Amino acid sequence: MTNEQFELDSRLKKDTLHLASWPLCEVLLMNDSQYPWVILVPRRTGLRELFELTEKDQQIYWAESMALSKLLMTVFTGHKLNVAALGNVVSQLHIHHVVRFEGDAAWPGPVWGKVPAKPYASDALSVMQSKLAGLRAIF
Amino acid sequence: MTNEQFELDSRLKKDTLHLASWPLCEVLLMNDSQYPWVILVPRRTGLRELFELTEKDQQIYWAESMALSKLLMTVFTGHKLNVAALGNVVSQLHIHHVVRFEGDAAWPGPVWGKVPAKPYASDALSVMQSKLAGLRAIF
Repeated sequence: MTNEQFELDSRLKKDTLHLASWPLCEVLLMNDSQYPWVILVPRRTGLRELFELTEKDQQIYWAESMALSKLLMTVFTGHKLNVAALGNVVSQLHIHHVVRFEGDAAWPGPVWGKVPAKPYASDALSVMQSKLAGLRAIF
Repeated sequence: MTNEQFELDSRLKKDTLHLASWPLCEVLLMNDSQYPWVILVPRRTGLRELFELTEKDQQIYWAESMALSKLLMTVFTGHKLNVAALGNVVSQLHIHHVVRFEGDAAWPGPVWGKVPAKPYASDALSVMQSKLAGLRAIF
């Protein structure tokens, strides 16, 4: 399967900001200033589940997910990381990585569908992008 | 790190039924008859995040998670699988694998903290255990 046909789901495109393109995944910042929330989207067409990735892509995905997880928890020193492949609404395979803090907007519940997103103000977005600049140097 | 000291979190123990012991993980059925919902718990003490597993354990975890995912979607032919490591309430590392159907009790929202669990009646539990008997043959 080639990557040429890959197109990001329109809902994901609308809700996120591009941070980096890694070997397998697009690395996207969810435009919700309430949590450091990064989404990995494998550039593969027509996939809905992690097990549909080829074995080689599964290995790359895992390396990318672990690198992202460690970076997020190092940069933000969160209380807990939530890593989840859900896709009930947007079926294109995408995996959430959300740093959680005790007392954050949805704590201790999950972040999905609970509290409306608060888009970043431009200053806060610049700060977040600076904090996440290390993402570009990993792969 | 040895496995001898491993003890399942009391909340997980209370909320689940034991299905199998795989090389790395305990395989537990969430006692909520509204969804086919299986939890993997690596038998390692003191871990909260996936990236805290050793590299070798990460490989075993991935193989177990993929095998469980495929089996669940084959047996139940769900619309979508939700795979999530959350741990905001129970910090012991555990990974949810939940088969979702359009129109299920929480659809399209996440299953956590939305609809109270409906424990299995004994007949329904027997049926579910039969459907999941293949778990014991995988590893």
